[in-house]
Amino acid sequence: MNLKTIGIIHSPFRQAEGTPIQPAYAGGSEGRIEVFPEYAPGLKDLEGFDRVWLLFWCDRAAACQLIVTPYKDTEPHGVFSTRAPSRPNAIGMSAVRLQRVEGNILHVTELDVLDNTPLLDIKPYVPAFDHLAAERAGWLGAAISQRSVADGRFERE
Amino acid sequence: MNLKTIGIIHSPFRQAEGTPIQPAYAGGSEGRIEVFPEYAPGLKDLEGFDRVWLLFWCDRAAACQLIVTPYKDTEPHGVFSTRAPSRPNAIGMSAVRLQRVEGNILHVTELDVLDNTPLLDIKPYVPAFDHLAAERAGWLGAAISQRSVADGRFERE
Repeated sequence: MNLKTIGIIHSPFRQAEGTPIQPAYAGGSEGRIEVFPEYAPGLKDLEGFDRVWLLFWCDRAAACQLIVTPYKDTEPHGVFSTRAPSRPNAIGMSAVRLQRVEGNILHVTELDVLDNTPLLDIKPYVPAFDHLAAERAGWLGAAISQRSVADGRFERE
Repeated sequence: MNLKTIGIIHSPFRQAEGTPIQPAYAGGSEGRIEVFPEYAPGLKDLEGFDRVWLLFWCDRAAACQLIVTPYKDTEPHGVFSTRAPSRPNAIGMSAVRLQRVEGNILHVTELDVLDNTPLLDIKPYVPAFDHLAAERAGWLGAAISQRSVADGRFERE
């Protein structure tokens, strides 16, 4: 299980503070996904998709905590019931809007990722695969916080 | 970027041939997600969610191919426009249905993963985060294949 960095995510966000916590809250955020040239042939036919999943390594996340108080609540929860980045494997996933592809660069919006984050994978977002039935969203169904941007709580010091 | 195995996915599928290619096609497939005891505290509050994302390492995937002919088409496409497992980083993601949690074991259905696959992460499936607007699904929007289970094309020999 050896991870390779396949590219770099370029975004307006230099620190966790003020960064949108999900693409759903990141409407106006533009960025560029740079895919290293040796992987660019794998981008063929991606432009037909409105949205893509980015998988990336949260390289500035604080060390794993199994119990966290997430942005959307004031109570602690198990980290696997949250999307917090301080996890055993700091893999983030975000379904961003794909605007266009130019060579090895993806121009995207609805981006919620820190600048210079290492890219691990790109997958197409497919409503037939990704819009699945789910009624209960646990503590998030009753979450009391309206917070939509991060602060420094999960950032490495 | 050092990945840790945090558990093991137990499923009825011993080989790619006949394994559902997505949870959307895996209605009847039951399995157990074994989380190693040291990570079990992180499962707190997960049971309130109907569905969870599993991230896992596709340990039996063939070597990366940048151009693949996926299950849903007869034409080749760039690997990043497909969900095929033979990718630069063989990370799979599946949103399975969570039936119940017993200690460090998740009982799930709609499972499309090979038996004994190394588990990397669990995240809650949250409709407010994961049901995102996307009209165009590229070549998959016009895909001609009705195939819903795998064959051996992406399996390591």
